[in-house]
Amino acid sequence: MDRAVAYAREHRARFVAELLDLIRIPSISTAPERAADVARAARWLADHLAALGFDARVEPTDGHPLVRAEWLRAPGRPTVLCYGHFDVQPPDPLALWTRPPFEPSVEGDVLYARGASDDKGQLFIHLKAAEAILRTAGALPVNVKVLLEGEEEIGSPSLAAYLPRHRRALAADAALVSDGALVAPDLPAITTGLRGLLYVEIAVRGARHDLHSGQFGGVAPNAVAAAAQIVAGLKDRRGRVRIPGFYARVRPPSPAEREAWARLPITEAALLREMGTDAAPGEEGVPPIERLWARPTLDVHGIAGGFTGEGMKTVIPSRASAKVSMRLVPDQRPERILARLVRVVPRLAPPGTSVEVRELASARPVLVPLDAPAVRAAARALEATFGVAPAYVRSGGSIPVVAGFTHILRMPTVLMGFGLPDDNLHAPNEKFALANFHRGIEATIRFFYDLGAGGG
Amino acid sequence: MDRAVAYAREHRARFVAELLDLIRIPSISTAPERAADVARAARWLADHLAALGFDARVEPTDGHPLVRAEWLRAPGRPTVLCYGHFDVQPPDPLALWTRPPFEPSVEGDVLYARGASDDKGQLFIHLKAAEAILRTAGALPVNVKVLLEGEEEIGSPSLAAYLPRHRRALAADAALVSDGALVAPDLPAITTGLRGLLYVEIAVRGARHDLHSGQFGGVAPNAVAAAAQIVAGLKDRRGRVRIPGFYARVRPPSPAEREAWARLPITEAALLREMGTDAAPGEEGVPPIERLWARPTLDVHGIAGGFTGEGMKTVIPSRASAKVSMRLVPDQRPERILARLVRVVPRLAPPGTSVEVRELASARPVLVPLDAPAVRAAARALEATFGVAPAYVRSGGSIPVVAGFTHILRMPTVLMGFGLPDDNLHAPNEKFALANFHRGIEATIRFFYDLGAGGG
Repeated sequence: MDRAVAYAREHRARFVAELLDLIRIPSISTAPERAADVARAARWLADHLAALGFDARVEPTDGHPLVRAEWLRAPGRPTVLCYGHFDVQPPDPLALWTRPPFEPSVEGDVLYARGASDDKGQLFIHLKAAEAILRTAGALPVNVKVLLEGEEEIGSPSLAAYLPRHRRALAADAALVSDGALVAPDLPAITTGLRGLLYVEIAVRGARHDLHSGQFGGVAPNAVAAAAQIVAGLKDRRGRVRIPGFYARVRPPSPAEREAWARLPITEAALLREMGTDAAPGEEGVPPIERLWARPTLDVHGIAGGFTGEGMKTVIPSRASAKVSMRLVPDQRPERILARLVRVVPRLAPPGTSVEVRELASARPVLVPLDAPAVRAAARALEATFGVAPAYVRSGGSIPVVAGFTHILRMPTVLMGFGLPDDNLHAPNEKFALANFHRGIEATIRFFYDLGAGGG
Repeated sequence: MDRAVAYAREHRARFVAELLDLIRIPSISTAPERAADVARAARWLADHLAALGFDARVEPTDGHPLVRAEWLRAPGRPTVLCYGHFDVQPPDPLALWTRPPFEPSVEGDVLYARGASDDKGQLFIHLKAAEAILRTAGALPVNVKVLLEGEEEIGSPSLAAYLPRHRRALAADAALVSDGALVAPDLPAITTGLRGLLYVEIAVRGARHDLHSGQFGGVAPNAVAAAAQIVAGLKDRRGRVRIPGFYARVRPPSPAEREAWARLPITEAALLREMGTDAAPGEEGVPPIERLWARPTLDVHGIAGGFTGEGMKTVIPSRASAKVSMRLVPDQRPERILARLVRVVPRLAPPGTSVEVRELASARPVLVPLDAPAVRAAARALEATFGVAPAYVRSGGSIPVVAGFTHILRMPTVLMGFGLPDDNLHAPNEKFALANFHRGIEATIRFFYDLGAGGG
């Protein structure tokens, strides 16, 4: 292990140079005219993995291709499924970049480019850790499967269908995902929970067609007013979601998590500063960090219908629709919440209106057991690398692929990210601190060795 | 008087032919490329009035011109201000017209054309009544002032400024407006009330910018949710507006009006059919016809903000705005309601949001005294013409110019319309029953004579 770490340190300059080659490919998955670039990035990675000694290939899908690779010559040892994505967000608005987004530049210790942190720089950590071990020991201490996709930034549509059809081929003891951030430059983190999602559109119908409020005001059902009543009625004054049974399966954070969270620099004051508000409304009596990570929420994203242009129109809208989503936490199930929502919404609709609830998307919440051997191995690897024990955090967002690893492939996922909270993901001037790229490689080397040694 | 009526009957064919000439001018006030046509219609009417013996002229405004005319040679007799508008709505959608909108065609008794009923056919009634009297008696029994505008369909912006600056020149004992409909083909109506209007935009601000619901759901104020809460909070479960003091100055309809309304064919069943709904929600315990004519209402017209496109976006909107209007009834005052609204809206806004209420438009409600001499004269004239006493109705809409006559010029307005409820105003295939055109002329002749004779 020490030789692998030494190798990684020796080859830092080359590792970065290779990463720059990958980053120069503008593999923007949402841009149809970039499809060839997404495919080129897939090919580049498959070739790179093959050169390292992996059995690697590009697999076509209905959308952008996947990269699959295996190194399975450690019989009796655990298997790790390394996941990453080689597609990137569009660089718009281009005018706000101070350097061209696909001409990576290193200034001091910082690499600026689209994809630097999300996720090319981080997926490359896994590959370089494997290289360091293979080139020094000749073999990996664990079996490694690699799954890289080119559609993460567009919602992983192909992977959603791929996972259940490749359960056996992808089987592993744990997944490893590096697509997140440290808590702070010197405080590594392991993400142990992700919220799930239920996103619906509520369509409201009132009169046969729009009516004039002079002619019908006082007798006509108003579809936008109905949508507003439904949205307002889905939460009570204390910030709780008013769907019967909504909280029945909410699992409170463990005492260990609560204790760990209390030490984090995520305070109400910090949130207010970041949001630019004088209040952080939510469930009464629940600390903000728990509201973000361990409590479900409901938000409306927009209400369509009627007239919203310049000036005025005295229309009583006959149609409206509201986009509403709920962030869910373990052990809530999107399909059960949906069934309850479908029953409660019509009761909130006023007379003369009818409603329809349509699911647009869902993802199950994820909770990673803190005592899973892979999580414990990752914690030790991070502590050895950073000199400080990692924080156990959660994320308020959803990562559908991790929900898939958890609930379809039924394996724990180690979410060990090496970016920083201000990496400008999805924004101009995305960046990645190279110190963390190198520390990530060392931590991953240690993680593979620790897990292979059967620690836990 | 009988000679004037006989004259009108003799010249029916010519009266219609002249009206067709006026209708052929496509005086669409909202279409900039039709400005010359609007001016042409003004010129046509001024020339026509001058030929009848009026002192007539076109007056320029910042927008489309007005037509002003006077015949003031009946000293000691009452003065009537005849109002009408010679601009029309655009004919779109053109494809739905079965005949060209500006090539009027008469089929049986029905004239089809844009402007046939709204309002060229009806304003022409006043002119032809004056002609019949002048050509048979040599003088009118009352003084007549004529005010015709070319901006009614775009909200009468120039007239709003014109009225207060021409109080003396426009002074009269009553205004006469024919821009409405009979209750049914053989049941004439006098409209004795119009609702007022207060139209506002409520702007809501939450966080500094839009936030991601994964990252901030549970602590972030949601501006669209706040707008929904405000809109929902402005009415209670019983359909009443929750602005303190909102109903304080609402005057109930008189027993005579209630009795008259009970006989009208405006039932809840008819409204449900017309709206295509199974309920006609409104204030609990108030009959539908009173909710339409004698009770104030509040409607939201649209809520802007957040994401309403196809698909999904997990945005927590930082900005939203709601367009809300109230129909007001005597003796509510828009400026007082606005002051109360401005105080109540912030109390409905949830923590972390701020709101601003901006007035977009207002109009005071109008109540015409049933015992005004001009109203009694109109009632007798209608009964003599139709063989049945007119129904006293109100309108749930607002006619700003009538509010101006009432509250700025301080005169009662006789709202005596000769269209039919299904004339397709503002819609394809607008029509006007010529029998009512001719009955309108006879009723107006009788109205002038009755008022001139000092009846009441």
